[in-house]
Amino acid sequence: MTDTKVYFLDGGTLLLDGFHVFWNQGPGGEVRIPAYSILIEHAEGRFLIDTGFDYDHTMKYLAFEKPTQTQDQTMPGALKLLGLEPKDIDVVFNTHFHFDHCGGNKFFPHAKKVCHMAEVPQACKPEVFEHLGYSDLSFSVEAAEARGRSHELINGQTRENTTFEGVEGDFELAKGVHMIFTPGHTVGHYSCMVERANDRPMMLVLDAAYTKRSLETLCQASFHLDPAAGVKSMLKVREMAEKHDAELFFSHDMEAFQTYKTGPDFYS
Amino acid sequence: MTDTKVYFLDGGTLLLDGFHVFWNQGPGGEVRIPAYSILIEHAEGRFLIDTGFDYDHTMKYLAFEKPTQTQDQTMPGALKLLGLEPKDIDVVFNTHFHFDHCGGNKFFPHAKKVCHMAEVPQACKPEVFEHLGYSDLSFSVEAAEARGRSHELINGQTRENTTFEGVEGDFELAKGVHMIFTPGHTVGHYSCMVERANDRPMMLVLDAAYTKRSLETLCQASFHLDPAAGVKSMLKVREMAEKHDAELFFSHDMEAFQTYKTGPDFYS
Repeated sequence: MTDTKVYFLDGGTLLLDGFHVFWNQGPGGEVRIPAYSILIEHAEGRFLIDTGFDYDHTMKYLAFEKPTQTQDQTMPGALKLLGLEPKDIDVVFNTHFHFDHCGGNKFFPHAKKVCHMAEVPQACKPEVFEHLGYSDLSFSVEAAEARGRSHELINGQTRENTTFEGVEGDFELAKGVHMIFTPGHTVGHYSCMVERANDRPMMLVLDAAYTKRSLETLCQASFHLDPAAGVKSMLKVREMAEKHDAELFFSHDMEAFQTYKTGPDFYS
Repeated sequence: MTDTKVYFLDGGTLLLDGFHVFWNQGPGGEVRIPAYSILIEHAEGRFLIDTGFDYDHTMKYLAFEKPTQTQDQTMPGALKLLGLEPKDIDVVFNTHFHFDHCGGNKFFPHAKKVCHMAEVPQACKPEVFEHLGYSDLSFSVEAAEARGRSHELINGQTRENTTFEGVEGDFELAKGVHMIFTPGHTVGHYSCMVERANDRPMMLVLDAAYTKRSLETLCQASFHLDPAAGVKSMLKVREMAEKHDAELFFSHDMEAFQTYKTGPDFYS
């Protein structure tokens, strides 16, 4: 069996207020955060976890987050650094459909797509406070039509090539790739633990906790649907990470991200 | 029948960040907000809705909110402006037990006390992100003991004189004093609509919406337990206010508060 390899695909940065990152705690002020996707090269195929943000969409709808993204930080650009093209991806799994996690979905019409069964319905009809989070609808013809934004589907998206397999609860996406249901941030959010042949498992916390401090202090992001569920999810991640002696990786922690392997460098 | 009179008891001010007042929207920066209680003089008795914050408690646990409170803005001081003493209050109704709504409860050992049946249990065992909200436990021996803080009960509080009648759903506290269940901000939050003999009903929104802008844009405060419920509660308040052509009063809106009648001046 080929050893599983995990690549972090740097997708650029966004600007938030400290009170967005650390709900009610702050301190306030501008905080620049990284956004990235995760490629898992596995004996069963190439699995892409999330697809980053789309620069043009972000500038159109969330310009106040002042996105930065080089050509190498677009989804095709980041894959090219590994000698890959979008067509090489077999499965796209979206942990949730906030714009900074699904902006590149449109590059993968051919891939199998998987997400929690409640996420597409939520993107179709979000809470009023979730409209900006679920702002990029190019990942789904169903969601774009439900929100009256099908004119933004300009990359050949069809019902067929944007249909998701809906999952629920904890499950294995591939052998040793454990999807951990961690709702709260959104209705159907997932974290992910990946077993490695030669090292401790990797716990990809995703947006259950943006940063190391968030998980340590149980302070979730201010973007959330159900904060009580969010706390339970953080406790679940902490307990699983402790039980399996997993190495923790955070989704939007600039200090931590600067120590992560990116580009052609990988974890195995 | 004596006409119902409604007094606003000015309780001082607190400092928040704009991202606390307007969840995720801001803008950030210091916002000074008023805190007040409401006295309803009614044929059936004197009803006090909430009891403001305690200055010493706030300085001890939440000094970053930089409280201001004159002698006239303490609970006994505010009542004295009306020629009343704490013993003249028949019923204390707490809309919820955040520290800025229950800090003066200790002055009313004799009064009947009423709140939503889920609020005291929540104060006993709050979510981790609710600990600072439910920080003043002097309103309840049960809550103070549950949180290991009974040493802070220094005003003669006993189990007997801090026991609440638990209510649920919408109900009339007195004839024409409609308590409206508006959860979200907390598990058992209430708003209140008061009928007047000579004018439109008053809709006391309380913390379902801190400000006029909050209600208009459905942007709740960043302090909340269940934001989806919070939106539903704001819609409920808006619909009731519209149906009854009620005049809206907001809990923490400095601009609006400066136009409200306070001290011995009253609404009837």
